[in-house]
Amino acid sequence: MWHYLKRLLIGKPLKTTDEGNQQLTKFKALALLSSDALSSVAYGTEQITAVLVVLSAAATWYALPAAGIVLILLFAITLSYRQIIHAYPSGGGAYIVATKNWGTPVGLVAGGSLLVDYMLTVAVSVTSGTEAITSAIPYLREHSIAISIIIVLFIMTLNLRGMRESASFLTFPVYLFITILVSMLAWGLFNIVTNKIQYNAAAPIGGAVPGMSLILFLKAFSAGSSSLTGVEAISNAVPNFKKPKRRNAANTLALMALILGVFFTGVTFLSYYLGVLPSTKETVLSQIGIAVFGKGIFYYLLQFSTAMILAVAANTGFSAFPILAYNLAKDKFMPHMYMDKGDRLAYSNGIISLAVGAIVLILIFHGQTNLLIPLYAVGVFVPFTLSQSGMIIHWFREKGKNWILNALVNLLGTIISFLLVVFLFLLHFQNVWPYLIIMPVLLFAFQKIHSHYIMVASQLRLSEEATLHDYDGSTVIVLVSSVTHVTTGAINYARSIGDYVIAMHVSFDENPKKEHETAKEFKESFPDVRFVDLHSSYRSVATPVLRFCDVIAKNSAEKNYSMTVLVPQFVPRKPWQNILHNQTSLRLRAVLNSRENIIVSTYSYHLKK
Amino acid sequence: MWHYLKRLLIGKPLKTTDEGNQQLTKFKALALLSSDALSSVAYGTEQITAVLVVLSAAATWYALPAAGIVLILLFAITLSYRQIIHAYPSGGGAYIVATKNWGTPVGLVAGGSLLVDYMLTVAVSVTSGTEAITSAIPYLREHSIAISIIIVLFIMTLNLRGMRESASFLTFPVYLFITILVSMLAWGLFNIVTNKIQYNAAAPIGGAVPGMSLILFLKAFSAGSSSLTGVEAISNAVPNFKKPKRRNAANTLALMALILGVFFTGVTFLSYYLGVLPSTKETVLSQIGIAVFGKGIFYYLLQFSTAMILAVAANTGFSAFPILAYNLAKDKFMPHMYMDKGDRLAYSNGIISLAVGAIVLILIFHGQTNLLIPLYAVGVFVPFTLSQSGMIIHWFREKGKNWILNALVNLLGTIISFLLVVFLFLLHFQNVWPYLIIMPVLLFAFQKIHSHYIMVASQLRLSEEATLHDYDGSTVIVLVSSVTHVTTGAINYARSIGDYVIAMHVSFDENPKKEHETAKEFKESFPDVRFVDLHSSYRSVATPVLRFCDVIAKNSAEKNYSMTVLVPQFVPRKPWQNILHNQTSLRLRAVLNSRENIIVSTYSYHLKK
Repeated sequence: MWHYLKRLLIGKPLKTTDEGNQQLTKFKALALLSSDALSSVAYGTEQITAVLVVLSAAATWYALPAAGIVLILLFAITLSYRQIIHAYPSGGGAYIVATKNWGTPVGLVAGGSLLVDYMLTVAVSVTSGTEAITSAIPYLREHSIAISIIIVLFIMTLNLRGMRESASFLTFPVYLFITILVSMLAWGLFNIVTNKIQYNAAAPIGGAVPGMSLILFLKAFSAGSSSLTGVEAISNAVPNFKKPKRRNAANTLALMALILGVFFTGVTFLSYYLGVLPSTKETVLSQIGIAVFGKGIFYYLLQFSTAMILAVAANTGFSAFPILAYNLAKDKFMPHMYMDKGDRLAYSNGIISLAVGAIVLILIFHGQTNLLIPLYAVGVFVPFTLSQSGMIIHWFREKGKNWILNALVNLLGTIISFLLVVFLFLLHFQNVWPYLIIMPVLLFAFQKIHSHYIMVASQLRLSEEATLHDYDGSTVIVLVSSVTHVTTGAINYARSIGDYVIAMHVSFDENPKKEHETAKEFKESFPDVRFVDLHSSYRSVATPVLRFCDVIAKNSAEKNYSMTVLVPQFVPRKPWQNILHNQTSLRLRAVLNSRENIIVSTYSYHLKK
Repeated sequence: MWHYLKRLLIGKPLKTTDEGNQQLTKFKALALLSSDALSSVAYGTEQITAVLVVLSAAATWYALPAAGIVLILLFAITLSYRQIIHAYPSGGGAYIVATKNWGTPVGLVAGGSLLVDYMLTVAVSVTSGTEAITSAIPYLREHSIAISIIIVLFIMTLNLRGMRESASFLTFPVYLFITILVSMLAWGLFNIVTNKIQYNAAAPIGGAVPGMSLILFLKAFSAGSSSLTGVEAISNAVPNFKKPKRRNAANTLALMALILGVFFTGVTFLSYYLGVLPSTKETVLSQIGIAVFGKGIFYYLLQFSTAMILAVAANTGFSAFPILAYNLAKDKFMPHMYMDKGDRLAYSNGIISLAVGAIVLILIFHGQTNLLIPLYAVGVFVPFTLSQSGMIIHWFREKGKNWILNALVNLLGTIISFLLVVFLFLLHFQNVWPYLIIMPVLLFAFQKIHSHYIMVASQLRLSEEATLHDYDGSTVIVLVSSVTHVTTGAINYARSIGDYVIAMHVSFDENPKKEHETAKEFKESFPDVRFVDLHSSYRSVATPVLRFCDVIAKNSAEKNYSMTVLVPQFVPRKPWQNILHNQTSLRLRAVLNSRENIIVSTYSYHLKK
């Protein structure tokens, strides 16, 4: 039943060698890798205006110059990442670039930031997608947290099925979004030119705004920098491209940046021209959609495709997180379970951890995109800064053609990213402070885990030859609670592995008659086996068992015998029935495992009915 | 460390024979067993008035006749329970009385109701106690749910320490409450007689109230019946009394009913005379306290002792629930873990289950006493009805002196309890409906658990003689991931118990060179041991291991060998480190346990650092 359900949800297992086939064409790569960046159009402009409108509606015209600077940043960062593509064709994630050039500690800061960042990618994309839905269907607004969580779980399930299947059907929503958005911008501009849409801006460009300050402008602009999130995705995935890998990747990146730039400019301009103001009930993009298309089929298609591309963007996190966790686990900074071999090529533990993390973030921030964004931006721009600056070191080390120019490009990227981090901390501290708690905790955990694994490995390493030890025999203690088929089976097995078999029973004051009967019955059934009745006055099974086993273990060691304790347990037909059995054997096994010289063995009796 | 903490919180283990010493004097028994009933003064009157005031303040005078009827019920139910004390001196809980006289199915309804009822006893007492605190210290009101949960956890800890210690210090708050309440009633009446307190009733007695109906009156009165909860406690605990047990118990019950009657009358009268109306911010008792004592030391003492006696009342549930769960588990209707022997005479699993249940109820009902009360009353009066009616059957069966009179007394008790259940369902359905869901679920669970245990017992029973089987030898498969000290230890042990030892390794495509090295290293270290390298293309360890073990198990069976799989695992120095290890061995053991002919043994390697 469970097996069947798992197959249905997760699909058949894939062979390891299947992995090589997952080669991306530019067409597919654009869909799969640019969704994160392109979808930020859904919230980027809104973030800028939301900061400005707090001062006054008149201040909103400053969104245009702020957007202009974001565009310049986009250009600079795209150039920097094209260089990373060429320098690290095997995939230049910030963790790898920072580790190789800056060393492990800095690499871990980048890695830790990215772990959090991917959770935020999922959380932000999903809550923003939910807002797209609730803008179109206001009735659903009160269920928005539930909707977000369901979407996360849905994407998680898809990812547990493996990446390739995701890829195929993910192209559709991305190209749908691109088509719809191009249509909206074109139709909007056409209507403006033909004067069918009236100029309705809240304030004329350049108009004086009382109270406007540079600080506020920087705050607005740094909030808008969230539009740049996701630009790095392509540089991480160079190995997945078809040959020539580097050129295809670099061209895809340029194309993506171009589309993003056009979208961002167009949306920001339209929102200004139409005088759209942010609202908690409806997204800016939705308001623009209504103004341009009217509330018809095209509007609903816009909202639907926005929600869909945001879901695909969330999916980006699901591709990236498990790979990063795998790399960190391989370097012994995260638990080995993230390298664990699941039934599929996807790294199930990473996928599940990411989904849990994203859901926790959604719950903490009440599913509100605007509260999540500044933290998200920090999680993005810290690794940006570290990998870009790492690239400068890379150029100084490698030199090569035009290396000074290359280093200057990455220097520009570094400065921009670094300034954004500074602005975010100074101007959005009330949303960004959790970063200062999460990062030290993560770094501490990385360090603890690492030193533990290193220590274990050194303990386990065989110094020279393996030291074989020949035991002269083996003692086996069988735990007996009453004389049943379980006892018979366990004693039979014990005699096959043991040279000296002892049956051990713990009795209590409560019912001396019954205890006496058990002893009698046992001796009749197994006259050859030594039966030990331990009396406990404390109603505790564990203490007397441990005490007795310790004595026998000592004797066995003196005789050069190995020592086994056989604990019988039930294997019921249905999983829920486990709660009705085995509580005592669970406890006993846990206690006995604390002894170095005792091997704990489980005799499983399978219930037939 | 953990051990030390446990000792500190839970105390030393008690011997089983210590149990006999827990004999209660009347003085102590009154404190321990009447707190539930007496503490209902804190919310009983309020429940009546709260229903009436919804119509109008003028309707509140009907609280006086409603209280009168409650008093009559108190008298009748006390008589009925005195008879149960004499008929079932070994403890006449509703589960036992109903089972003995009505048969098992009805007994289970009573038992199930009581399980829920005890959780509600804890929840209602604790939330009501919290309201006593927040009435006096309004600042704490916004933390009331947290306060309630902390109190539950605190009482749980006390009970894990064992019942006797609880008993000693519990007498104090009960007698303190009795003293304070007697003082308040006396001082209030004195001031009324001397005209220092003015008549301030919201409506004159007998005044016409537009809209008043019999339905509303019955609704108010049935809400007030919550004052009768806890009256049964003494009849359940007859064996705990000093000799002559029956007489002492019956007299204690009579005394308790007298005190409860006086308190309930006095509080209801004062609340009417002072014109106190229920409020969400302050309890009725608190308002009376301020009116009588002024806001001084006596008032705060009243609130403090009210909170304390309610905590003691919650404790009643903690004494009763584990005993009921034990009885149900002994009769195979609840999991055996409720018969489990903890380190103490208390039944730890029952105590913890109760605390969890109460906390869940507090969270569901947002810590509001008035929402919990109708459900609580149903949980009380259903078992009342069943045990009282069971007593009628008892008298018809046993006959004896005055049996017709006795049967009539219990008939009266039955009718009253039954009518209250009917009223509660008809008039408070919006709070009572969960009962109709919980009970069928519980009854279904009881039945499933029972049939499972019966079936298991029949499977295990030895038909006649135990069938001994002599194996000719034993096969042991050792799982090897790499060649380390763990491998050496495991192989040494395997050779001591096995006649034929196989080392099994699973290799993957990823790193063929490393796999080859492992094989080479193993063969050098253990030239005598057969090394099998299983190749997995699916990155799955479980499937190839299971397939191979099945083949070997079949061969072993043919040779008449027993078959063991030895799974190595780490025992780290610190518990948190477990998350860094053993994920694969856990999974493998779970999978291998599904095979009937394979015994799974665990080789524990203890990390030194």
